Amino acid sequence: MPRVHNFNAGPAALPLPALERAQRELLDHDGTGMSIIEHSHRGKAFEAVHNEAISLLRQLLDVPDDYHVLFQYGGASHQFAVVPLNLLHAGRSADYIITGGWSEKAYQEAERIGTVRVAGTTEVDKRYTRIPRQEELTLDPNAAYVHMTTNNTLFGTQWHWLPETGDVPLVADMSSDFLWRRIDVRRFGLIYAGAQKNIGPSGLTVVLARKDLVDGGRKDIPTIFRYATHATNNSLYNTPPTFAIYLVRNVLAYTVETGGLDEVERRNRRKAELLYGTIDERPDFFRAPVEAASRSFMNVVFRLPSEELEKRFIAEAAREGMVGLAGHRSTGGIRVSLYNAVEVASVEFLVSFMRAFASRG
Amino acid sequence: MPRVHNFNAGPAALPLPALERAQRELLDHDGTGMSIIEHSHRGKAFEAVHNEAISLLRQLLDVPDDYHVLFQYGGASHQFAVVPLNLLHAGRSADYIITGGWSEKAYQEAERIGTVRVAGTTEVDKRYTRIPRQEELTLDPNAAYVHMTTNNTLFGTQWHWLPETGDVPLVADMSSDFLWRRIDVRRFGLIYAGAQKNIGPSGLTVVLARKDLVDGGRKDIPTIFRYATHATNNSLYNTPPTFAIYLVRNVLAYTVETGGLDEVERRNRRKAELLYGTIDERPDFFRAPVEAASRSFMNVVFRLPSEELEKRFIAEAAREGMVGLAGHRSTGGIRVSLYNAVEVASVEFLVSFMRAFASRG
Repeated sequence: MPRVHNFNAGPAALPLPALERAQRELLDHDGTGMSIIEHSHRGKAFEAVHNEAISLLRQLLDVPDDYHVLFQYGGASHQFAVVPLNLLHAGRSADYIITGGWSEKAYQEAERIGTVRVAGTTEVDKRYTRIPRQEELTLDPNAAYVHMTTNNTLFGTQWHWLPETGDVPLVADMSSDFLWRRIDVRRFGLIYAGAQKNIGPSGLTVVLARKDLVDGGRKDIPTIFRYATHATNNSLYNTPPTFAIYLVRNVLAYTVETGGLDEVERRNRRKAELLYGTIDERPDFFRAPVEAASRSFMNVVFRLPSEELEKRFIAEAAREGMVGLAGHRSTGGIRVSLYNAVEVASVEFLVSFMRAFASRG
Repeated sequence: MPRVHNFNAGPAALPLPALERAQRELLDHDGTGMSIIEHSHRGKAFEAVHNEAISLLRQLLDVPDDYHVLFQYGGASHQFAVVPLNLLHAGRSADYIITGGWSEKAYQEAERIGTVRVAGTTEVDKRYTRIPRQEELTLDPNAAYVHMTTNNTLFGTQWHWLPETGDVPLVADMSSDFLWRRIDVRRFGLIYAGAQKNIGPSGLTVVLARKDLVDGGRKDIPTIFRYATHATNNSLYNTPPTFAIYLVRNVLAYTVETGGLDEVERRNRRKAELLYGTIDERPDFFRAPVEAASRSFMNVVFRLPSEELEKRFIAEAAREGMVGLAGHRSTGGIRVSLYNAVEVASVEFLVSFMRAFASRG
């Protein structure tokens, strides 16, 4: 079967050369006579891969020296618990900015662990169609941290500015737009991102964390949940998901080889421009619920005139080799995920299909 | 490079046909035009793999209907915390039987969470050379559970009987001997096993748990740590490590095709017999510290007359294509891991090398 156009929301498309490298090397890693999957996490072969992945992340994002780069397991849902377990000290409160289903979940999990406040929400009738403005936030200057979700996969919104939080550390769930472009890591106290959107397979989470936050983290929690445990052991306290780290290494190495994050951003902007441009050409047919200034470059959501047409759209697109276009089961409609590995050519193919579909009505 | 003889302690050797299948299918899973890694965890293609893996586990171990089969992340170290978080209710105490470094760690993590007792230990001078006898255990009939480690990778011991715990549920860390043969699941309240020894890559943990224990688990803990959360959602509450589950499926399917656990046990017994037989032939040269009745079928540890000879043994074996023979950094000596995927031929090769090495002195 020829390769499809994969618009999945995550796990999602990965760069073909990174997968081809994995395929080529799968039975014999680097001339060692065994698979990377069969290597000890304490051996030289894996250690080289592990450290290369960390150093590629540092290089791509210019991660400052006073930040740890950690590999964790369990995805964002695990971090929803682990962030407050580490950072929400007794007697303190944390601020959560709610911009979609995932920030709701992060808030609810934190609520089970300590004192939390909603510092702002753009929810209207259980929907979120925009990112809040600074003046809509009521931030507690004494908060332990402010939590935000930089990109909202369900509702197709994305922050294009960062809230001003003064001395309060900003904690960001960046699972769905991590590495979509350069960011200024210094603006954040802690960033976490499940790998399965932009950088690799599911089962691995990258955490960038300011060292003082890690060192000052709560000590009265299980050892395995402490960021400090993983920081002290270079993310090798326990056996990490070695193949996932290997594949992230392949993706990051490929990213560097092909122009780094500037080139990634250029392609991502081009793809979003193509798709939103096509939606905006036919406002009578394609209805984009998201406020223009809050539109996501990663997940583009829109509706057609009827659910009947939406079903037909998804089915016909599938027949032409385009998959992953159904909106989240909680929202319906169409969702097109444009993660880093989705090719510009796939979006060109999609928009020409969209134009033809809209003409046929 | 030809395939080496891989005696790694974990991550460890996997069956070559399971890896070859992964390699063949890596770019195009089941004619879908994308990698299994790129499939949504909520799509039909992955769902089929996920459910097949669960059903193969049920079939291989005759898992009774009143037990859940769950996929978790984070390995045994994560379970060290999650077991007491779920099962150690306020006002209760749990019993831990200590037979090596991993049970020590399980105990220490549980101690941070609730009240725990040591119900038995075979530690002498920080070493463990045997499994306790029933009469050495001081079990609390009111304990929330009794925790044991069925096989001890560092010290090379293994339980060949099960402690009688009455109505108290037995919780077993089976990471290093899971599926080495059939077991009677009914003897256990809960079993957990990191995949990276006998059944797959690191990053995935299998949990078999009696439904009443899951249902009665603590509700005042973070949602993601509750077994009940994962049970209710067929281990799809959050994005699971999809490729790890896929590869476990390959290993389990291959196990069934090649004769199931009876054949696995037969081969494992043959391998251990060959290796312990060789050790016992030359007690003047090979010193096996473990009491005969407690010897592990999975990890065989022994010493040579000097550390100098041990270093030479490991280096010469490596030159002949045998890797993973160094003992754990905390114990030294030689350790040979004989997990399911290690071929009888590899052990034959090793023992003939051992005999020649011992003759040379």
